[in-house]
Amino acid sequence: MTDLSSPNARSDRWGKPMRGWRLWLYTIIFEADTRAGQLFDRWLIALILVSLVVVAADSVEALQRRFHLVFFSLEWLFTVLFSVEYIARLTCVRHPLRYATSFFGIVDLLAILPTYLALLFPELHALIDVRVLRLLRVFRVFKLAEYVSEYQALGAALVASRRKILVFLSVVLMVVVIMGTVMYVVEGPRNGFTSIPTSVYWAITTMTTVGFGDITPKTDFGRLIASMMMLLGWGTLAVPTGIVTAEMTFRRVQPPQPTTRTCHECLTEGHLPQAIYCQHCGAPLPAYQQSGGAGA
Amino acid sequence: MTDLSSPNARSDRWGKPMRGWRLWLYTIIFEADTRAGQLFDRWLIALILVSLVVVAADSVEALQRRFHLVFFSLEWLFTVLFSVEYIARLTCVRHPLRYATSFFGIVDLLAILPTYLALLFPELHALIDVRVLRLLRVFRVFKLAEYVSEYQALGAALVASRRKILVFLSVVLMVVVIMGTVMYVVEGPRNGFTSIPTSVYWAITTMTTVGFGDITPKTDFGRLIASMMMLLGWGTLAVPTGIVTAEMTFRRVQPPQPTTRTCHECLTEGHLPQAIYCQHCGAPLPAYQQSGGAGA
Amino acid sequence: MTDLSSPNARSDRWGKPMRGWRLWLYTIIFEADTRAGQLFDRWLIALILVSLVVVAADSVEALQRRFHLVFFSLEWLFTVLFSVEYIARLTCVRHPLRYATSFFGIVDLLAILPTYLALLFPELHALIDVRVLRLLRVFRVFKLAEYVSEYQALGAALVASRRKILVFLSVVLMVVVIMGTVMYVVEGPRNGFTSIPTSVYWAITTMTTVGFGDITPKTDFGRLIASMMMLLGWGTLAVPTGIVTAEMTFRRVQPPQPTTRTCHECLTEGHLPQAIYCQHCGAPLPAYQQSGGAGA
Amino acid sequence: MTDLSSPNARSDRWGKPMRGWRLWLYTIIFEADTRAGQLFDRWLIALILVSLVVVAADSVEALQRRFHLVFFSLEWLFTVLFSVEYIARLTCVRHPLRYATSFFGIVDLLAILPTYLALLFPELHALIDVRVLRLLRVFRVFKLAEYVSEYQALGAALVASRRKILVFLSVVLMVVVIMGTVMYVVEGPRNGFTSIPTSVYWAITTMTTVGFGDITPKTDFGRLIASMMMLLGWGTLAVPTGIVTAEMTFRRVQPPQPTTRTCHECLTEGHLPQAIYCQHCGAPLPAYQQSGGAGA
Repeated sequence: MTDLSSPNARSDRWGKPMRGWRLWLYTIIFEADTRAGQLFDRWLIALILVSLVVVAADSVEALQRRFHLVFFSLEWLFTVLFSVEYIARLTCVRHPLRYATSFFGIVDLLAILPTYLALLFPELHALIDVRVLRLLRVFRVFKLAEYVSEYQALGAALVASRRKILVFLSVVLMVVVIMGTVMYVVEGPRNGFTSIPTSVYWAITTMTTVGFGDITPKTDFGRLIASMMMLLGWGTLAVPTGIVTAEMTFRRVQPPQPTTRTCHECLTEGHLPQAIYCQHCGAPLPAYQQSGGAGA
Repeated sequence: MTDLSSPNARSDRWGKPMRGWRLWLYTIIFEADTRAGQLFDRWLIALILVSLVVVAADSVEALQRRFHLVFFSLEWLFTVLFSVEYIARLTCVRHPLRYATSFFGIVDLLAILPTYLALLFPELHALIDVRVLRLLRVFRVFKLAEYVSEYQALGAALVASRRKILVFLSVVLMVVVIMGTVMYVVEGPRNGFTSIPTSVYWAITTMTTVGFGDITPKTDFGRLIASMMMLLGWGTLAVPTGIVTAEMTFRRVQPPQPTTRTCHECLTEGHLPQAIYCQHCGAPLPAYQQSGGAGA
Repeated sequence: MTDLSSPNARSDRWGKPMRGWRLWLYTIIFEADTRAGQLFDRWLIALILVSLVVVAADSVEALQRRFHLVFFSLEWLFTVLFSVEYIARLTCVRHPLRYATSFFGIVDLLAILPTYLALLFPELHALIDVRVLRLLRVFRVFKLAEYVSEYQALGAALVASRRKILVFLSVVLMVVVIMGTVMYVVEGPRNGFTSIPTSVYWAITTMTTVGFGDITPKTDFGRLIASMMMLLGWGTLAVPTGIVTAEMTFRRVQPPQPTTRTCHECLTEGHLPQAIYCQHCGAPLPAYQQSGGAGA
Repeated sequence: MTDLSSPNARSDRWGKPMRGWRLWLYTIIFEADTRAGQLFDRWLIALILVSLVVVAADSVEALQRRFHLVFFSLEWLFTVLFSVEYIARLTCVRHPLRYATSFFGIVDLLAILPTYLALLFPELHALIDVRVLRLLRVFRVFKLAEYVSEYQALGAALVASRRKILVFLSVVLMVVVIMGTVMYVVEGPRNGFTSIPTSVYWAITTMTTVGFGDITPKTDFGRLIASMMMLLGWGTLAVPTGIVTAEMTFRRVQPPQPTTRTCHECLTEGHLPQAIYCQHCGAPLPAYQQSGGAGA
């Protein structure tokens, strides 16, 4: 994977310009090594956070009635600023298409699209909040390369385990489809299980131990099946945890731990069970008798 | 366990025919090595998925009113097709009874039975969804032997731990029966705890942290008992997890573990870092240099 | 700990009689080595199970109206039988007091007390279900010594970790008391948080992720605090789990695992990456090329 | 970290007086080595517990109507006593400012402040419960130095993992903000999702599997998104747990681990149990004797 801490590496991806105003713009927008670059990034983060608060506040009816015009104007101001920034990014790199199709490029586009789409579909207005993903830049701003590597480690771990995750997910999906259908048959629409999709939704709330309670089984047989599902969903967490802990505790007891055997000559203690000579002065140790040992 | 990647192995179970039309049918239906065999499997998966969607859609009232006749016809079409396939499977193997009693054989039968049973018991109609288990074939279709082995590993792990699981389950069952009964006595039918079975159902929703909320304790003493049960159910997950993590962190920080230091005289290795004399022959040990050792 | 598989060991605790009718009674009631002893135990388990079902059924109103007299008579029959058995146990051992104060002795007494207490306090009738603890004998009945040792292992693990558990519990209790009080101040009785104990009960339902929903925060500030508590309660499970998994995945990548390197001379495979000579025949091995190896 | 079991160490922090009435006061209040010191601590714990119960009881309406005057008087008595104690602490150490800014110093101040603040802001009265933090002293009272080290270990573990925790939290926060916003758009205020902050609150109850049920999705698309969030929140616990358990079981079953077997010719160690020839020089290895070794 590209070494993100090295600016040379990054610029290879989208093409750092050679000279001129484009190079100057690039160092400010894409890099954070110069003071201007750092200032730009901090203002960007601040603007993103304020715009998120504005969109959230605009959805609260009490605030909307009083401040909608202010919010509306601010929102368009932000969108225009971010659009200008986006175009600046596209123009100053040598391979604009690579940037536009990269992860951060798509995120930056999604950050400004909703405001424009909302002209056509007003109800999508709130999706402006998607620009929260732009905050992933915050780690670069504060030169926190370790956080970046933590994120990458997290992502890599997920990718490496993708087969196990898929198998696990498929088993869970089959269980909830079958159990949901069974509950639909047992309880019926009269008790809230109005259709198979609804029953499957209930089965998921139960197996994942969320338990909203908007739909609940009313019949005795339904409650019995629900009980089994709940024990299954919770047990899937509890049983492995218990097994792992049992293994761990057992291993703590077994390994060739230093014991409290004491040397008669120099009184050093903490020799291994199999030791014959003192580790500190070389004198012979008395024979080792286990005293029935085990125990955490 | 049979090596499922080898076709010779599989056919030994049900008996691969030697020649003729039965062999031709077998290679298409049971094997996925020929193009016809793969095509058959992909169509089969598609048909199963479509039939599941049809049954689910038929349970949604809005869709049922408009499309019931279409759904009904499609459902019988699928059932007839799957029945023909089932009979084909039975006729082309040499030991039909072994197939019929194997896991996949039973699943294939359960996939067509509900439609016929629904003629007698209309309310069982929805159980057609059980045929989702047929989708376990999807891994063979796409030659995903690794997924099959992941499933088998999962199953094997469960079987190996069955004693621990049974002990754990029995303790949980005893706790919920006793606690459920106590809550029945403390809260009473007036507060929603209408009978002991109902109270046990509530106890299970509480211990597994699902918490539907259809039944909740109203008295102070009842809420106190409920609080203890909640801490028990959640703690059963949190405490072992915490212990395991503490162990892990401890090992990273503090390993006065025997090392690979080797004595020059007697060649015994495995001395503690602080040892000065050999534990086996008493000779002086060379000084210990750490190589930046342990852990993450 | 006493070796429970050896009958001589067990009898040392309460005193196995030497001879006569008391010895005969002892071998039937306390031991399961003779056929009469096994028969006794199986009938005992069956009787306990039936009595539990009777008490549970008697609490269901629909069944109670129709069968109360039957249930009532059966319940007294069981209690009389169990009382006779209890007295038999006391009379046939040499140290009846030791039996009466042992775990099983107390359980056996609690199994018959509620029925008598219910003569004075009718509402305690349901506590007869406490006799479910007698079912712990089921493992001895079926000579399942391994299950007994699993139980003991579970108990031993809990005892060994008692300090960590107490510390953890005390932290959780302090958090819920403080957070519950804060929510009481923020939300107030008007929003369901009627008193500090009630608010602490709500805090426990939230931190343990049970979430009944009988009490919920209505104010924005209250919901903010609730959000932090939910993340705390769920995070206490998720964060350690994630850390442990990260550690594990890291270690899998590191250690010198046997590979699939094969010796050309004798075709043995499974040599370590650093091996130069075959472990089986001593011939030189070809150089090792990693193929991008590690991971899931 | 300071060794808290050594009184000399502790006094270095705030300054143990040299002589006179201040030294006498110090040994009673801050130390628990003398009988007077222990008595003081036990009375202090008892007083704290009683004052907590008084504040909690005062919030229960039924009790408040009958006993408010008693509670009120007791509360002021406690506050006066604790204030006197606090001033005593400040006066008898040599560096009062260090004590006032230490953890215990702040806790002791927060324990008496609310009662005074409640004169100005009556609704803060209940925050007196914050003094429950003073109960952290209980471990010193009973000379439980091991509990103190357990607490410190817990704290140290959290500090060491702070980067991972921050990364994890930030991912969770981004997910709930985006998902909450999406649900706000999909469901709308008509279905309970009255604003973006409210929807984010719902998203947190769902991902943390708390599931109050005060807000629930009503549309099919909303329930679909909710299902994915529930599987995500529960899966974040279940998947790593399953992976860890699978790893553990794998290691138990299959350890062709390198051992510490050493070749006599070239002194290379770390051969597999089944190896016959040295992997480094090809010489024959001595036979392998297991010492009861690896794995549970």
